[in-house]
Amino acid sequence: METHETQLDKECRRLKDKLIHMATVAEQMIDQAIKELDERTEQFAQEVSGQENELNRLQIEIDEQALGLLATCQPVADDLRFIIAVSKINGELERIGDLAINITQNVHILVQQPPLKPLIDIPRMTELVCKMVRESVEAFIAGDTQLAQSVRLTDDQVDELRDKILRELLTYMMDDPRVIEQALALILVSRHLERIGDHANNIAEDVIYLVQGRDVRHPKTAR
Amino acid sequence: METHETQLDKECRRLKDKLIHMATVAEQMIDQAIKELDERTEQFAQEVSGQENELNRLQIEIDEQALGLLATCQPVADDLRFIIAVSKINGELERIGDLAINITQNVHILVQQPPLKPLIDIPRMTELVCKMVRESVEAFIAGDTQLAQSVRLTDDQVDELRDKILRELLTYMMDDPRVIEQALALILVSRHLERIGDHANNIAEDVIYLVQGRDVRHPKTAR
Repeated sequence: METHETQLDKECRRLKDKLIHMATVAEQMIDQAIKELDERTEQFAQEVSGQENELNRLQIEIDEQALGLLATCQPVADDLRFIIAVSKINGELERIGDLAINITQNVHILVQQPPLKPLIDIPRMTELVCKMVRESVEAFIAGDTQLAQSVRLTDDQVDELRDKILRELLTYMMDDPRVIEQALALILVSRHLERIGDHANNIAEDVIYLVQGRDVRHPKTAR
Repeated sequence: METHETQLDKECRRLKDKLIHMATVAEQMIDQAIKELDERTEQFAQEVSGQENELNRLQIEIDEQALGLLATCQPVADDLRFIIAVSKINGELERIGDLAINITQNVHILVQQPPLKPLIDIPRMTELVCKMVRESVEAFIAGDTQLAQSVRLTDDQVDELRDKILRELLTYMMDDPRVIEQALALILVSRHLERIGDHANNIAEDVIYLVQGRDVRHPKTAR
């Protein structure tokens, strides 16, 4: 029994390491996609696409490893919940990578034209969502519900920035219809960032559920 | 052993029934959210919100039932893959419900103003994504990979409509800046519909993976 448990522990540690790696890659992708927009270059586009391949490869690896663990070790209780959570977080991180790719598609439109305005809120939003991605996975690894709660609070700030960006860009569009396409691309970038924040928020909620056994996903739902 | 297997089969059938129920509720939510837009009323808003509560309740129930099954029956091979797939599809359907709520928020803005244009492509897109949601879950229940493949093909049509809607509404915005806010709300509705299609597409990919053991999620990823 002793060896069996050690094997499971070892595999769980490997899963954790892979998730941390995924989170780092995802964060770099977001950061570089926005750097392209800020520096008005497309030099990172290929790199971001290469990182997406890595993320996809990691997702499949983690999925298969988790499934293999469930089948061979038949874990129960905490270990079982842990592996199910890994599998969910894996999916969230992969989608975050997809959204970074969506951002580069909008950036491709944006860098063809002179900048509409100096970027302030979008880099700020990017910083916040990158922090959310990093901290949500850290919270999972450490089982730290306080950190998970702080990720959830940051999500409110991200939503506020999304609304502020929308209001400002609407004004630009109304003042000068020639900038509509550009302003719309910026609005869509902010929506993609918001969705990245939502995925990090989902991870934080999984952490709280895992540690406290309390479902915070649907506070208003009668159980 | 006989009774044990029967119990597992029974629980799996219950999970299937709940997923079908979730898919029906999700489809109704999308349909009603767009009906509000089409009929310029908000009479269904409360209903859609009530249905979201039901979807959330079902999600928690299915999650707990799946986790309980893994812990007590310790299924292997096909049964294990089936339960993991149920858990993923459960998450996709819940997010589809969230997106229907997002649509009602945009509809709320839209019905305050006279219609910009007769709606043609958005109802068409709605029809397609509702079909995708229904058929992706049907494909899962029946283990029908052909139906799953047809869901994936429909997703291409949905993406084409999204681009067509964007191009058309950009023209409206450029012609008359007073309609910018309204046109933007319609663009966001089309994006929410597109994301619903993406979630149904994810379900279809899970079905193919489950039945054929072939991962179609990342065709370009070197294994």
